[in-house]
Amino acid sequence: MLYIIGLGLGDERDITLRGLDVVRRCVKIYVEAYTSLLSFGLSSDGLSKMERLYGKTITIADREMVEEKADSILSEASESDIAFLVVGDPFGATTHSDLVVRARQLGLDVQVIHNASIMNAIGLCGLQLYRYGETVSIPFFTETWEPDSFYEKIKRNNQLGLHTLCLLDIRVKEPTMESLCSTFQSIAAYSGNSLCVGVARLGCEDQKIIAGSMEDLLEIDFGPPLHCLVIAGETHPVEEEMLNFYRIK
Amino acid sequence: MLYIIGLGLGDERDITLRGLDVVRRCVKIYVEAYTSLLSFGLSSDGLSKMERLYGKTITIADREMVEEKADSILSEASESDIAFLVVGDPFGATTHSDLVVRARQLGLDVQVIHNASIMNAIGLCGLQLYRYGETVSIPFFTETWEPDSFYEKIKRNNQLGLHTLCLLDIRVKEPTMESLCSTFQSIAAYSGNSLCVGVARLGCEDQKIIAGSMEDLLEIDFGPPLHCLVIAGETHPVEEEMLNFYRIK
Repeated sequence: MLYIIGLGLGDERDITLRGLDVVRRCVKIYVEAYTSLLSFGLSSDGLSKMERLYGKTITIADREMVEEKADSILSEASESDIAFLVVGDPFGATTHSDLVVRARQLGLDVQVIHNASIMNAIGLCGLQLYRYGETVSIPFFTETWEPDSFYEKIKRNNQLGLHTLCLLDIRVKEPTMESLCSTFQSIAAYSGNSLCVGVARLGCEDQKIIAGSMEDLLEIDFGPPLHCLVIAGETHPVEEEMLNFYRIK
Repeated sequence: MLYIIGLGLGDERDITLRGLDVVRRCVKIYVEAYTSLLSFGLSSDGLSKMERLYGKTITIADREMVEEKADSILSEASESDIAFLVVGDPFGATTHSDLVVRARQLGLDVQVIHNASIMNAIGLCGLQLYRYGETVSIPFFTETWEPDSFYEKIKRNNQLGLHTLCLLDIRVKEPTMESLCSTFQSIAAYSGNSLCVGVARLGCEDQKIIAGSMEDLLEIDFGPPLHCLVIAGETHPVEEEMLNFYRIK
């Protein structure tokens, strides 16, 4: 059996009791290293805290490993219980559909244990989840590459009065604190006065949520990743009341 | 301090370790009874299982109680640690914004502990979360009341090639297994040939996920609530591969 287990957003204590039960009875545990790892403290220290709490040795599986060694992971899962741990929810912002499809094509049982992801936890900012349009992913900009295909989606959501969740890409091998700022500057060129909510490390103890105009948010130091940005559409009074708690003073 | 703690989708073992820590140190525990309660087995049996596992007496707070007694709950929270348990995520399909706003207006600290909700767990059906448009809530139809305002949203998402998550309302005091069927019939009048995914009890051990045309889904007995329905927009190959595992044979 292959178990795909969401770890939630904060740290090793955000696993569910159901998830922990499964981890403790699996013979081998992998954890993805290629998405969201920064928020989860998957440094060697974060990993050893997980290993102590879960009582298991955990193997980090980076993107290359999952792609190259999927056959051997799935072969193990055909003979014993294997857990694949995923930061957030297995089908949250990033998907693990490929691994699931391959497992099922081999006739393996796959069980998913859900957890929070950015896609639902963003509700904390006060804008109601059912009033979001299509989510956009914004890649890391470089001096020579500033893709803007996401902007049409933001504009369309805005025309429909819907909020837009913008997931900001991270450079796994070379994280920098400038990603949010450079992305904001590009979007601000389009919508400097739009009401936005900047969110850093959602679900972590040091999460930061600040609402204001895009231009005002440019001045804020949000600290380390992960970052996301919500561009508000039309807001209702109860949404406004929640946002007020996060507004730049 | 007021803690608002997501319980996840399945049963009492879907709470996170972080959530359980908090519950065990709070002096009073409320659990919402007015949303999603059916999926969570909040019968007296379900409640007593929660109480045994969490080691606490739990007070059921139905909608009327939360509205009428919010002041006394908040007054308790100003003097000691109070937990308010919510099926799914606190800001998932239903929101608890009102309680949070009132607490913060009183200057109370509010801490949210996230968990899975239908809004991210629906990713399990194979359609990618970032390709959903606006979510629609479909109320329970009666012989004399069949609202159709949701249909425009479905149509708009469809025109944009986006998927639509339709949350089907439950009648809390009088649940019936016909809700899904009657709703399907109404939607089928518009889109009988659309590719859809019917989902029942997502995240529970007996969850049921079936993909097919709306008309074909009409023939399926999905069993007890909670139910939701996804109307697929344009699908990508990897989405198709996942959906194939759920197709009506």
